[in-house]
Amino acid sequence: MDVTRSPAPRETGPDDLAALLQHAATAADVLAAWPRERRAELLEALADALDDDREALVAEADRETALGRERLGGELTRTAFQLRFFADVVRDGGYLEATIDHAGPTPMGPRPDLRRMLVPIGPVAVYAASNFPFAFSVLGGDTASALAAGNPVVVKAHPGHPATSERVARLAERAVALCGAPRGTIALVHGFDAGLLLVSHPAVRAAGFTGSLGGGRALADAAAARPTPIPFYGELSSINPVLVTPSAARTNADGYGTGLAASVLQGGGQFCTKPGLVLVPAGQAGDRLVAALAEVIEQTSARPALTAGMASAYEQGVTARTSEAAVRARGSSAGPGATRPALLEVTAGSLTPQLVEECFGPLAVVVRYDSDAEAVTVVEQVEGSLTASILTAGEDDRDLPATRAVLTARAGRVLYDGYPTGVAVSWAQHHGGPWPSTNTLHTSVGATAIRRFLRPLAWQQAPHHALPRELRDGPPVVPVRIDGTLVLPGGS
Amino acid sequence: MDVTRSPAPRETGPDDLAALLQHAATAADVLAAWPRERRAELLEALADALDDDREALVAEADRETALGRERLGGELTRTAFQLRFFADVVRDGGYLEATIDHAGPTPMGPRPDLRRMLVPIGPVAVYAASNFPFAFSVLGGDTASALAAGNPVVVKAHPGHPATSERVARLAERAVALCGAPRGTIALVHGFDAGLLLVSHPAVRAAGFTGSLGGGRALADAAAARPTPIPFYGELSSINPVLVTPSAARTNADGYGTGLAASVLQGGGQFCTKPGLVLVPAGQAGDRLVAALAEVIEQTSARPALTAGMASAYEQGVTARTSEAAVRARGSSAGPGATRPALLEVTAGSLTPQLVEECFGPLAVVVRYDSDAEAVTVVEQVEGSLTASILTAGEDDRDLPATRAVLTARAGRVLYDGYPTGVAVSWAQHHGGPWPSTNTLHTSVGATAIRRFLRPLAWQQAPHHALPRELRDGPPVVPVRIDGTLVLPGGS
Repeated sequence: MDVTRSPAPRETGPDDLAALLQHAATAADVLAAWPRERRAELLEALADALDDDREALVAEADRETALGRERLGGELTRTAFQLRFFADVVRDGGYLEATIDHAGPTPMGPRPDLRRMLVPIGPVAVYAASNFPFAFSVLGGDTASALAAGNPVVVKAHPGHPATSERVARLAERAVALCGAPRGTIALVHGFDAGLLLVSHPAVRAAGFTGSLGGGRALADAAAARPTPIPFYGELSSINPVLVTPSAARTNADGYGTGLAASVLQGGGQFCTKPGLVLVPAGQAGDRLVAALAEVIEQTSARPALTAGMASAYEQGVTARTSEAAVRARGSSAGPGATRPALLEVTAGSLTPQLVEECFGPLAVVVRYDSDAEAVTVVEQVEGSLTASILTAGEDDRDLPATRAVLTARAGRVLYDGYPTGVAVSWAQHHGGPWPSTNTLHTSVGATAIRRFLRPLAWQQAPHHALPRELRDGPPVVPVRIDGTLVLPGGS
Repeated sequence: MDVTRSPAPRETGPDDLAALLQHAATAADVLAAWPRERRAELLEALADALDDDREALVAEADRETALGRERLGGELTRTAFQLRFFADVVRDGGYLEATIDHAGPTPMGPRPDLRRMLVPIGPVAVYAASNFPFAFSVLGGDTASALAAGNPVVVKAHPGHPATSERVARLAERAVALCGAPRGTIALVHGFDAGLLLVSHPAVRAAGFTGSLGGGRALADAAAARPTPIPFYGELSSINPVLVTPSAARTNADGYGTGLAASVLQGGGQFCTKPGLVLVPAGQAGDRLVAALAEVIEQTSARPALTAGMASAYEQGVTARTSEAAVRARGSSAGPGATRPALLEVTAGSLTPQLVEECFGPLAVVVRYDSDAEAVTVVEQVEGSLTASILTAGEDDRDLPATRAVLTARAGRVLYDGYPTGVAVSWAQHHGGPWPSTNTLHTSVGATAIRRFLRPLAWQQAPHHALPRELRDGPPVVPVRIDGTLVLPGGS
């Protein structure tokens, strides 16, 4: 269960990068002209390639990350599922937002024929995450959604799992070739400098990032400072507050306490959706819930962090916070490079800015509150989060209405009677939220993640041959809004 | 036909601004909870208020801008139409992107119930434009779409028409009160400093801007540099290239020449969609088209610019360019504060960076090309534009395929056999484009402009009472994607 660091890969130099991007730019024109069905088939071929190499991929990733074969196998399943899901999204075509306004009169005079659709934006840079060597990496969600949109992708590998990244990239290249897609469709680069060059390169038209607030903000600034700025979609930092209502504590202290512990500890606490702040009512029922949570934390031993740097950053983060909050529980110790779970506790009145900042790893901070009003003051100190969880005694529990409202305003996903770790890939998913959880109004998981890598284009009085197939007159092949009315394929 | 400058309005100080934003923040919560029908009625009441005060509004705006009563009357009609159009968009509800995934099995285990919808983002800052005292001002497109989304708006008035802005704001306040909307729903501020404070204020959650590249980039940088960055939607600078094919020049030189002249001169050349660069084939047919264009330019006399600063910037812009291109025509002169139309001409090989930069006012630059390949080299020097126009000899004209492709890649709206000025308000409109025409992947005109002022929110396992009406089970009241299938209201 130890991490075996891979030898550092050869860093991608500026000349190699320029060559890769030349291929990507050429590939962009080819892929943009592909019919949607062909893009869907490419996504499915990539999913098949992952499935076919499952055993070797999981072994390699486990060697590099020590996340465990079971978890990594599940992650690989999810990654393949996600590629196939985007094939469905592409076939459905609703994401194109196809719209046709035929020429007609208006109070301002005649209106020309106008047709609008989303089109591929061009080569996309993807910055892989440390904590998901498959699902947020070479063939992860950003890549899947960028390819689904019809764009080539250049992935910057995370240094935590370079060999796994290379293996996936080689599989992808073979699938790309078998599908007859152009050579620049997917490429992989290594190295910090290559990553910076990538976001600044004129051929790159958008970037997706999952990682730290510091790294993300630096890349976002570089994207914004280009002579031609590009959209930068960053998933950065999230504390993921959890609110336990008084009724919930009274009725299910043990269940929610142990459930929360499992969520804090999942993946070694190395999830962007790890619940980092738990609001628990003062008093006996709350005490019991915290005790149940503490008990699991205490019984859990340290486990290897994804990188040595993360292990020491985590330990420093815990130590710094212990001067501001009581230590309720710590897991058992281990050698260097491992992270000991920790539970801190503080009253609402003693909360500090540091305690509401994300600490990446198996740490949670419990905040005890007295009333709805006091819980509101806690949540008002919390910045935007990917998620906010509300643990209740069931549908009829209407405790803390004010706190629920402010929590909802600060989150991208509000969940009830469940835990934030585990982000389903589906049509309705939203994995994004107010700053600093993300820097845009978009998601990196779920069907609408594709919107990030498309741009709107309108055609006015265009001849039939200049229009994309989806915008031509005749029975709609995708959902189309025609003269203001949404029409479904097969509809009239 | 002279501009009568209004006395400078009292600038909004920091305390007044803070008070306004306090009201806006309160209004945001109230408006977000309003049913869509009530928002639609507010938009219609605002449209009625404009119509009811038409005569006085047009007179005031003409006094301040000298744009002419006919044009301003048409603009007012458009502005009221746009408010009513957004009422339709709100009632339709498709913009919500409502999505329901019921709980169910996946290869990764059970998936919880997930529901997603777009919700209002919060108070919006709107920066009014100089050149549209109604349509891109206090109750213009940005305000209409922000209100439609369910947000309060604080408008920064343009100094070119402060009295018109005040008059519209007073009308709006009365309509807001009559509709029972909260006091902070629409507010107006004056002054450069107030504008900068506005985009940096924590209560403001998004901003819309129409204006210059310099001003827009400064505000965009301020929005990005906030401790909590916000989306800034800027419409900045656009050269709007026009391509005349050889067949078009052969068959319709006079028609296209005079048509282009009218588009260049419309509104005194003070349109963001003014065609600033016209690619014309070398040779006799092209000569004839340029002569027809030049003749109209020459016969047109100077007219007052919107502001004195714009007049001198225009004259400097023309003078600077005459060292790089031949002067083909100039309109007749007038006193200071007026702009003389100008037509410059250059060969493709002699094009300079300055000649492809927007010059706000009645100037166009003609570039003569020899071949498709040469026209491509011209377009490759053009930055992103709101529009690209292709003037052809009709549907069967397939001239210049390569140039058409690179033009399309650089524009937000590609139009055939027409002129870019005049932006219809409709479902399919897109008024945006690659940098620097806009800085985001959004439009400021048309139904989808509303997307700028909404954020996605997902609910997981939420009790019925915590869900918005549009996401509850039962017959859909708006278009909803249910378990992957788009369902229309009244559908099954």
